[in-house]
Amino acid sequence: MAAKPNIQMSSASVPLVHEVEVLDEAGRKKLTHIPGERSLTIYLDKREVVTLMTLGSAPEALVLGYLRNQRLVESPDDIESIQVDWETDSAAVKTRRSTVDIDALTSKRVVTTGCGQGTMFGGLMEEISAITLPDGPQLSQEAIVALIDSIRVHDSIYKRSGSVHACAVFERVGDHGVELLHFIEDVGRHNAVDSISGLMWLANKSGKDLIFFTTGRLTSEMVIKGAQMGVPFLLTRSGVTLMGLELARKTNLTILSRCSGKHFEIYNAPERVIFTKNS
Amino acid sequence: MAAKPNIQMSSASVPLVHEVEVLDEAGRKKLTHIPGERSLTIYLDKREVVTLMTLGSAPEALVLGYLRNQRLVESPDDIESIQVDWETDSAAVKTRRSTVDIDALTSKRVVTTGCGQGTMFGGLMEEISAITLPDGPQLSQEAIVALIDSIRVHDSIYKRSGSVHACAVFERVGDHGVELLHFIEDVGRHNAVDSISGLMWLANKSGKDLIFFTTGRLTSEMVIKGAQMGVPFLLTRSGVTLMGLELARKTNLTILSRCSGKHFEIYNAPERVIFTKNS
Repeated sequence: MAAKPNIQMSSASVPLVHEVEVLDEAGRKKLTHIPGERSLTIYLDKREVVTLMTLGSAPEALVLGYLRNQRLVESPDDIESIQVDWETDSAAVKTRRSTVDIDALTSKRVVTTGCGQGTMFGGLMEEISAITLPDGPQLSQEAIVALIDSIRVHDSIYKRSGSVHACAVFERVGDHGVELLHFIEDVGRHNAVDSISGLMWLANKSGKDLIFFTTGRLTSEMVIKGAQMGVPFLLTRSGVTLMGLELARKTNLTILSRCSGKHFEIYNAPERVIFTKNS
Repeated sequence: MAAKPNIQMSSASVPLVHEVEVLDEAGRKKLTHIPGERSLTIYLDKREVVTLMTLGSAPEALVLGYLRNQRLVESPDDIESIQVDWETDSAAVKTRRSTVDIDALTSKRVVTTGCGQGTMFGGLMEEISAITLPDGPQLSQEAIVALIDSIRVHDSIYKRSGSVHACAVFERVGDHGVELLHFIEDVGRHNAVDSISGLMWLANKSGKDLIFFTTGRLTSEMVIKGAQMGVPFLLTRSGVTLMGLELARKTNLTILSRCSGKHFEIYNAPERVIFTKNS
């Protein structure tokens, strides 16, 4: 495993939850909380690449994951610095490499599915068709239930303000346990998954031992990102679309949907799930 | 009011709900239903513009609304035909105009907020800052409750498969009533709102007498699209982000959030709501 890349990163913070006064249906004033949403424009070697709308909880990780998933940077080692500045709502990324044809990389746009979407450049769809995850590892029913419970009790922006999606990534511990590595919320689930992807990239973590959880639906885009990271398990509290399922079948990804309490539904590759006997 | 534009449109249909076999947490097989999701690549006068991921319930309306909201076509009168072909997952749009610089129009990308996002080209944000909706009209509490109930009882893909967002548009009828004009579901709420926008454009309906409802959150993008359509009322079953609220304040839009049963919360411009006495 390579040493952790030496990236100079800002640690820009911003208020995530805001109190606002509203009226209820009887005209009575009450206070409530809503999540922030701000624009963040990414500049790659001074070239404007994209403007993302984000909660802003982990902007450096988001930038890193965006660059990774859009294939705009090949390795974290290529990045010299990421400086996020909320005064100007911008993220300046400086690379160590000579110039790359950013125009060519960003010429093809795909607007992906609603709740948890993003824009994917280039031939990501073609790339996916080449991915088949190896069989294994397995995850026990107890570990799945423990994972769902750890999400339930986790402190969150969602509990304070609603209106955000969470993504989390876990590692297996022993036969029946899991450990939460990262939990990230954003107004866009595509941002949350990109942020997690960025953190995994930075830590040089291979996806093959990881389990990915999201509160949002597993649409084509989410499954593509999971397959790109090489994560064999995608779990959601929500549902799955047909293209999400088809992509999971093609890439041999295990999908668990409607995860809640002790319940879940296995949509693909159930061989990776070990059921408890006598349950 | 101008005559309805003469556009030759296909009426492409495709299965929206799919039955799949899953395993529950005890390993028992069961059947469930999930929504379709497919790609639709828009070609404008033979130039590839974008690929949208969509449920596919109203592809021609989606194309029309996308072209409207991205400002790629100025008027429905400029469109000669829209031909959607699900064999090739493409929509061919032919205009009556001479060539326009599509490259210039599509050069700036904004990836908007997750659940209900999209890509907005050009200076839409700047355009919004010039919009201020006029005061009025008003909507009574009874009409709001009737609207929420009509959504509740409406037949939907959501009831059959979950995992889709709905958008609907209503017209006021008398002092306390509303009439549903269109109800559209999609895997992306940005697609659903674009589709509604397309239908309103085609019918040459001004937004000022309309009420817009969505099951998704009112993020910046949704409020921008509402303001662009000139709709004074945006209602959601879900929540609001801070930028959504700020944009509503700037454009004088009335926002009702957490609409459920007889309940709702007014986030902005409550002057447009007439409360029932003694409630």
